[in-house]
Amino acid sequence: MEKETNKRQYLLADRKSHPQDSVIEIGGGDVESVKIGGGNFRIIAGPCSIESEEQIIETAKSVAASGAGLIRGGAYKPRTSPYTFQGLGKEGLDYLAKARSIVKKPVVSEILGTEHLSEYENVDMFQVGARNMQNYELLRALGRQKKPVLLKRGMSATLRELLLSAEYILSEGNPNVILCERGIRAFGHYTRNTLDLSAIPVLKEMTHLPVIVDPSHATGRAELVAPMALAAVAAGADGIMTEVHPDPAKALSDGMQALNLAEFAELAKQIEAIRPFAYRKK
Amino acid sequence: MEKETNKRQYLLADRKSHPQDSVIEIGGGDVESVKIGGGNFRIIAGPCSIESEEQIIETAKSVAASGAGLIRGGAYKPRTSPYTFQGLGKEGLDYLAKARSIVKKPVVSEILGTEHLSEYENVDMFQVGARNMQNYELLRALGRQKKPVLLKRGMSATLRELLLSAEYILSEGNPNVILCERGIRAFGHYTRNTLDLSAIPVLKEMTHLPVIVDPSHATGRAELVAPMALAAVAAGADGIMTEVHPDPAKALSDGMQALNLAEFAELAKQIEAIRPFAYRKK
Amino acid sequence: MEKETNKRQYLLADRKSHPQDSVIEIGGGDVESVKIGGGNFRIIAGPCSIESEEQIIETAKSVAASGAGLIRGGAYKPRTSPYTFQGLGKEGLDYLAKARSIVKKPVVSEILGTEHLSEYENVDMFQVGARNMQNYELLRALGRQKKPVLLKRGMSATLRELLLSAEYILSEGNPNVILCERGIRAFGHYTRNTLDLSAIPVLKEMTHLPVIVDPSHATGRAELVAPMALAAVAAGADGIMTEVHPDPAKALSDGMQALNLAEFAELAKQIEAIRPFAYRKK
Amino acid sequence: MEKETNKRQYLLADRKSHPQDSVIEIGGGDVESVKIGGGNFRIIAGPCSIESEEQIIETAKSVAASGAGLIRGGAYKPRTSPYTFQGLGKEGLDYLAKARSIVKKPVVSEILGTEHLSEYENVDMFQVGARNMQNYELLRALGRQKKPVLLKRGMSATLRELLLSAEYILSEGNPNVILCERGIRAFGHYTRNTLDLSAIPVLKEMTHLPVIVDPSHATGRAELVAPMALAAVAAGADGIMTEVHPDPAKALSDGMQALNLAEFAELAKQIEAIRPFAYRKK
Repeated sequence: MEKETNKRQYLLADRKSHPQDSVIEIGGGDVESVKIGGGNFRIIAGPCSIESEEQIIETAKSVAASGAGLIRGGAYKPRTSPYTFQGLGKEGLDYLAKARSIVKKPVVSEILGTEHLSEYENVDMFQVGARNMQNYELLRALGRQKKPVLLKRGMSATLRELLLSAEYILSEGNPNVILCERGIRAFGHYTRNTLDLSAIPVLKEMTHLPVIVDPSHATGRAELVAPMALAAVAAGADGIMTEVHPDPAKALSDGMQALNLAEFAELAKQIEAIRPFAYRKK
Repeated sequence: MEKETNKRQYLLADRKSHPQDSVIEIGGGDVESVKIGGGNFRIIAGPCSIESEEQIIETAKSVAASGAGLIRGGAYKPRTSPYTFQGLGKEGLDYLAKARSIVKKPVVSEILGTEHLSEYENVDMFQVGARNMQNYELLRALGRQKKPVLLKRGMSATLRELLLSAEYILSEGNPNVILCERGIRAFGHYTRNTLDLSAIPVLKEMTHLPVIVDPSHATGRAELVAPMALAAVAAGADGIMTEVHPDPAKALSDGMQALNLAEFAELAKQIEAIRPFAYRKK
Repeated sequence: MEKETNKRQYLLADRKSHPQDSVIEIGGGDVESVKIGGGNFRIIAGPCSIESEEQIIETAKSVAASGAGLIRGGAYKPRTSPYTFQGLGKEGLDYLAKARSIVKKPVVSEILGTEHLSEYENVDMFQVGARNMQNYELLRALGRQKKPVLLKRGMSATLRELLLSAEYILSEGNPNVILCERGIRAFGHYTRNTLDLSAIPVLKEMTHLPVIVDPSHATGRAELVAPMALAAVAAGADGIMTEVHPDPAKALSDGMQALNLAEFAELAKQIEAIRPFAYRKK
Repeated sequence: MEKETNKRQYLLADRKSHPQDSVIEIGGGDVESVKIGGGNFRIIAGPCSIESEEQIIETAKSVAASGAGLIRGGAYKPRTSPYTFQGLGKEGLDYLAKARSIVKKPVVSEILGTEHLSEYENVDMFQVGARNMQNYELLRALGRQKKPVLLKRGMSATLRELLLSAEYILSEGNPNVILCERGIRAFGHYTRNTLDLSAIPVLKEMTHLPVIVDPSHATGRAELVAPMALAAVAAGADGIMTEVHPDPAKALSDGMQALNLAEFAELAKQIEAIRPFAYRKK
């Protein structure tokens, strides 16, 4: 019976077993080492899909200059339809590695299955998408290595279910997990999903793991990314992940929700300005 | 067929028919006149239920001193169970009138049916609760008078349905409507409802009416009120309505979600501090 | 705090306080007296809105001949938009009274507020719609008279909330309440609402009150009414309420979900055929 | 942008491209060949988890004798918590193969990842669980072989998303897909999920693929399995999948929702009796 129960069961993720905030380090070696959690706030930015070497390098340079601490870019894309662009795959990861070597920032990219693990050598953090939050074979495999994992909340996952999925990684020996709220499925039609910002303070009670927010997938509309990013920061998020494209109208996936380079630079400034006034538990 | 359609139909509430933000004035006469909307931000605070003359006067004085622009207090309470405290009724409205005459701030109180209209003489703004958002006889009656109406979003109302309920009031001749997001019903169990903060920027595209947020009912837990209030301000809300009680543990209704007087004073300061950095559409 | 709790509180509606099924009698006097509950199954049929004397009389004669035990027809219509047809009001109730006097079957019609109580003299059962399930002033008023009340589940009401709304009627002295599942709001778009048929066996555990199902509002599409009606009967419903119109394409409201007279006659036969094989608790 | 759109995109699954019902054959060779779809109705029964050789053989013999056309049994179990019973794995599949060789009925078992494909030699139909409905690497791999796939609807998947997941299998060359409604996540707490039976007639309009229903996972409570199974049959389902255990109180997983052997035999008879009266599109 996997209905929501009162039993916590997320023993290692539980704040009770680890009262201090976890601080996760990403990168290091030939790129910068950045921290998320325990007061360390970072912006992760980049295109939904890596479309070409030029596109990812241009975007990476620009967002790094504007304040992004990590670069994102999708190579293997989980698409609802088999007939839409599925990403450049290994070729995309190679382009991302070039961008990484140029901007010297750690990079994050989604992984769809254990088949691909060996291709992620130059990726600093694995992303597990909402659709794979309960792909337990993948979670276990990511638990048996040490790179950080950015675990997105499933479309209709409760917070307990999210923490139990994190627990699959933690219990295999990898303590480096960052949680990401990206909107849940509710009855509304105006946004792609319903961003559940109360998940931030509630998760911070339940767990010591860092919590970041993805306002791009949550809303699906570029004009809503800034208000929701600022709201997430105000509520106490440890980071923001947002999609940025040099020319959103020409993006091969999710262009409607991407900021352009100037919009991202503006948002990064607004986030910087509001951060000192964000909620902090006493 | 009342399924969500593309037809707007909320002709008077529509931003297209009235591009500038509406500014709603509440109070005046023997109390202060306050504005909400078009850059005017206000905090509404007070107890869930008026429990005694002392309680409402003490609370009103304290929250007014701490920064509340309007005082709230429930006299007729819509309670899920017929066996829980139903409010003091007319007696409660009398106590609220005394508090109003002392602090000289406008007051808002929920009305449950047209039967009670004549008892609200000393109330400056009618509140229509989530359960009555589609009580059309009540909406029409409030449209045939001129006092402002604070219209709360129903538990599972779409934004179009909320605006069509506002339209019932507007189309009868009363232009003074303020909308309030207070959480929707989704699958989660950690909070009483799921606060849908993207409703703020989306409503502001759709309509010229002011939009405020009630983080107390949305979360049902006092410790979540501050982070969600700050998030709502960051996302561009025109006001915050929050429940405050001199001694929450002894409240006759909803004590778990009420702030005490000191917590409210602290929150009011935090709201003041974050406001200059809130999202504003260019 | 009105979050779902373990406290039942629906003392009079509770199966524990009244182990046998309640049997509700509707009509009598100059029309037939019909029973619902405790093994008594009835079909309620008629138009969404009463549109003319001819329309309601033609429909009533036809559905009565085809097997409907009660006639429905809306006079005061709760419409999401103030600009769509609001029903004929008192005139509609007069036409319904004529149809009643001709077919000698009890009639049911929705009431929107206590203002209209005196106009329902010739209506045998009050319907409280989903939007008014928590209009407590109306529930209390219906509890202070003796005619049966058909109480529809709110769009996002839990079963406990539905029973507590029934309790408002019961606790004022009227034991004649029939519950109606009519679909809840979930994330799907293919039907108007999501019909929650497990509500039938679950409610029958919780309460002694009869439970009927409205597949017309639940689905919003005429072609889905028959499969969902048969499913509801199979799951143990005490009755079916369905919308029927002599010419659905010309209906002033909800035409897409209405059966025509021949379709209803066919469905009534199918319901009769499947009933002996429906679920019955041992 | 993967929001529900009007674009169908499920080209091969679309009823428009294949107007007749698909009939899927499962088994053959050394076990019986059974058909599902196009008027062929089958019951699939067996334990949630295979716990021992004796348990699966006893259950398989009993349910086969009572009317089950296929045997189910879980070997690799997707469990929300890493600390609960995860299934016997390969050993479980070996026990299932023994039961299969004894009862000569085809068997179905869930697969969690492509790693395990080679272990399913003696399994006649792969089950893809709700959590993996959008595990595209797994879907693609199952599309590159020919055994039938039982694809369960994700917890919050729309019907379009379900069909697009089926399309991943179909577009790789495997036409043998059966869809399974197993309850969606809504706001209710009385059942594990909310069984969406209108999915049956709606899917049958959209697609030619067979549609079966799992009332065990949908409700999570054994006493609700029979009413919901009968309702699903009445609504036109092509099959029922239900969990059966010789001693539910001692089951290692999901015991609360399992029928015992006698209860299953009784349900199989009731299903047989109601089938002639089920909904059939003209």
